[in-house]
Amino acid sequence: MARRGMMKLGMSMRGLGYHPAAWRHPEVPADGTLRFDHYAHNAQMAERGLFDMIFFADGIGLRERDEPRGSLARSGYELVEMEPLTLLPALAVLTKNIGLVTTASTTYNEPYHVARKFATLDLISGGRAGWNIVTSWSEAEAKNFNREEHLDYDTRYERAAEFVEVVKGLWDCWEPDSLVYDKEGGLFYDERRMHLLNHRGKHFQVRGPLNVAGMPQGRPVLVQAGASEPGREIAAATADVVYAAADSLQAAKTYYDDVKGRMAKHGRDWDDLKIMPGVRTIVAATRAEAQAKFDRLQDLTDPLVGLARVYAALGDLTGFDIDGPVPEPQREAEVRSSTERIMQRARSQNLTIRQLYKQIVGGGFYLIGTASDVVDGLQEWYEAEACDGFNILPPYLPGCCDDFVEFITPELQRRGLFRKAYEGRTLRENLGLKPHVNRHAEERARSAAAE
Amino acid sequence: MARRGMMKLGMSMRGLGYHPAAWRHPEVPADGTLRFDHYAHNAQMAERGLFDMIFFADGIGLRERDEPRGSLARSGYELVEMEPLTLLPALAVLTKNIGLVTTASTTYNEPYHVARKFATLDLISGGRAGWNIVTSWSEAEAKNFNREEHLDYDTRYERAAEFVEVVKGLWDCWEPDSLVYDKEGGLFYDERRMHLLNHRGKHFQVRGPLNVAGMPQGRPVLVQAGASEPGREIAAATADVVYAAADSLQAAKTYYDDVKGRMAKHGRDWDDLKIMPGVRTIVAATRAEAQAKFDRLQDLTDPLVGLARVYAALGDLTGFDIDGPVPEPQREAEVRSSTERIMQRARSQNLTIRQLYKQIVGGGFYLIGTASDVVDGLQEWYEAEACDGFNILPPYLPGCCDDFVEFITPELQRRGLFRKAYEGRTLRENLGLKPHVNRHAEERARSAAAE
Ligand SMILES: Cc1cc2nc3c(=O)[nH]c(=O)nc-3n(C[C@H](O)[C@H](O)[C@H](O)COP(=O)(O)O)c2cc1C
Ligand SMILES: Cc1cc2nc3c(=O)[nH]c(=O)nc-3n(C[C@H](O)[C@H](O)[C@H](O)COP(=O)(O)O)c2cc1C
Repeated sequence: MARRGMMKLGMSMRGLGYHPAAWRHPEVPADGTLRFDHYAHNAQMAERGLFDMIFFADGIGLRERDEPRGSLARSGYELVEMEPLTLLPALAVLTKNIGLVTTASTTYNEPYHVARKFATLDLISGGRAGWNIVTSWSEAEAKNFNREEHLDYDTRYERAAEFVEVVKGLWDCWEPDSLVYDKEGGLFYDERRMHLLNHRGKHFQVRGPLNVAGMPQGRPVLVQAGASEPGREIAAATADVVYAAADSLQAAKTYYDDVKGRMAKHGRDWDDLKIMPGVRTIVAATRAEAQAKFDRLQDLTDPLVGLARVYAALGDLTGFDIDGPVPEPQREAEVRSSTERIMQRARSQNLTIRQLYKQIVGGGFYLIGTASDVVDGLQEWYEAEACDGFNILPPYLPGCCDDFVEFITPELQRRGLFRKAYEGRTLRENLGLKPHVNRHAEERARSAAAE
Repeated sequence: MARRGMMKLGMSMRGLGYHPAAWRHPEVPADGTLRFDHYAHNAQMAERGLFDMIFFADGIGLRERDEPRGSLARSGYELVEMEPLTLLPALAVLTKNIGLVTTASTTYNEPYHVARKFATLDLISGGRAGWNIVTSWSEAEAKNFNREEHLDYDTRYERAAEFVEVVKGLWDCWEPDSLVYDKEGGLFYDERRMHLLNHRGKHFQVRGPLNVAGMPQGRPVLVQAGASEPGREIAAATADVVYAAADSLQAAKTYYDDVKGRMAKHGRDWDDLKIMPGVRTIVAATRAEAQAKFDRLQDLTDPLVGLARVYAALGDLTGFDIDGPVPEPQREAEVRSSTERIMQRARSQNLTIRQLYKQIVGGGFYLIGTASDVVDGLQEWYEAEACDGFNILPPYLPGCCDDFVEFITPELQRRGLFRKAYEGRTLRENLGLKPHVNRHAEERARSAAAE
């Protein structure tokens, strides 16, 4: 344990939780995604639970899964919600220590805006900002940004890599001691310590400097979530945190070793990157109660919404008996590997349609049980060095966030797996990351040493 | 008075104030533009003074005026500051009634982002968001967004008009009663009351719907600042507020009558638009004290910074005696009308170089004197129907904002020119604007009536 220090934890706070039936749960405020008090409660609760950060996934459009007509209106999932980069500054005022991380797409943004906004969030929050770098993937989003289709994969990643370089460059334009504020002498800044960026690349031309400076973290924390080959390479080269998707310990461990193993060639240490897989937790006083909580949520899943989740692979199953066997795929579309996988599962387990979509809706890495059960699961992954911590995906809010803080945090602390107080002032410090070194200040120090 | 109700007031809070020497003033925190407590203090003070709104101008880059080498580093003006659309949500949490208005450029943004962010600000603030629509004009900004030069004027305005149409369309996608949240029936929203935008124009293709809904104001308040022919037309057609630049009562009155006169043809009433010229106020117990405050600020203006302000028109005057006469223009550049105007002023008043730049730096519509003097000036414009209120441009912060609230607000109230408490809950209500009517709801009502 000692070698790696304590577990890192993020609370993924998007919407009403990660189960698509969350909004129908009697204790969930169905209008919560449009109410500030909903977000404020969850953020403050996560801070009481000493989470390293709250985390917002994001989409820039309604990603329809509504092929069975009417399913979107019945889904209540990721439909209308607050824009997280506008929400986080408000949450910053109501919290003191917790990190504030949100997603911004490199495909549909300009680096100057992104650099400016995260720098501002870092200032407002006293050094708690983090950017989850994503490339976006849905056509629904493309269609809100002047396109018919999303950019092809390679172009998206190429653009993303350049985008991140520009943002990092903009964040470094002002050296830490560049602002001298000399009222007597009439000098606001030291010209030798302010640097234009003058970036001229394939996708962007950005002169700089940024018109924000003095971020407490030097630069915001960089989070990344891509699982593919180029995604892993970007993570190993530049990310401070990876939000990983994994549903078995073995898969998590393989991913962990692979990505960490790529770091040395980028001149980075093993501990410079924190890998945090997503996990859904449901806790109660007894296992039976916890299972009942989960089953209740599963039962609240509208059949149309469930069918929408298998539509892409199996086509329109609405004519079939929902409690009968899964029929052959009802579409002529290209054979997808996901179709194969789903059909195999349905056949081998002899599933009804309802059973199948419930498996998919309630899928992912779940830990359900008593506090001790859940912590056993987290500890197992952590001690196997399959992760540096977890991104908690509460199936419904605020319940699963409240329960985590009330039951799971104390058990983690009891076992010495988790902090009893915030160690640092900034997100970077709490994550145990090295301080950011401004490239120009470093360069100057190097030249001075060489003389 | 009664006819128009009370005066409307905005507090322009950008940076450290509107005088370029503000940062050198002993009572001004030179690092304030990077400190949240600076903005928080001013916003809360403006709310104590019952201002309708705080207002942020914005630029997306350092607009260099540094031709005399070194002047930028000595100017301390609009250099580094927080990004206002990220700042306002945080200020929303610390205030209850005051409107929150900021600038966003239609030239370097995408309408989906702008619609989403302002909708979110409206939700967080309980209906206090406003968008100041600008087209941007500096090359420094263009160079941060993949361009060498800014877009030509006509294209900028054409794009702006389409941009605003798209944003308004996105804000109307969800009718007010579209979200039904029917947990029992499993229906989250009513499909008949959600509308795609399907915009296909010259500059934008945006499908929609917006993934935010339920704004308390129906839609945020639209502010506009263009003074040109197309600027006036857009204002008359769509703006709720115009931030006008005027330095004489006559000019303000002419502008006011012109823009208001254009409204009828767009089906709008005279009172549907509030025209608020910017005014700089300096107040003290006596006229002499107020004048001394202003003079002090003028004297703090660095000669290099002063020279930078005349550079565009007159070229490099650094070799000349600053207390000697203004020489002939030192540049070969195209003859600008501003060059002519400045030289005429210098000759007719026999100005030294220092006197000239001080006139320019300390220019604009200033009211300097006792509370009674300042209110006389405001009242004169208001009663001449040259405006519906004012956008206060404090020469330095927090001093001039504090002084306004302490001395001028009570005098305005005493004369019955200004509110004694907020009338409404939203910015729209406080400004006395009509409620926003959703286009689809209106359409539905119209069809129902026709049947
Ligand atoms: C755990 C995880 C979380 C993600 N979160 C988001 C998100 O919030 N918004 C988004 O647009 N894409 C998100 N993505 C998608 C990625 O940005 C990326 O587009 C996708 O994973 C495809 O890239 P890859 O093949 O490298 O994984 C996420 C991906 C993963 C694995
Ligand atoms: C009072 C006033 C305030 C303005 N504020 C801004 C601003 O904050 N940011 C910006 O980019 N442009 C600003 N502008 C510039 C306008 O958006 C516009 O580009 C400029 O006025 C040229 O257009 P016009 O000829 O119609 O006035 C402002 C203009 C005026 C008159």
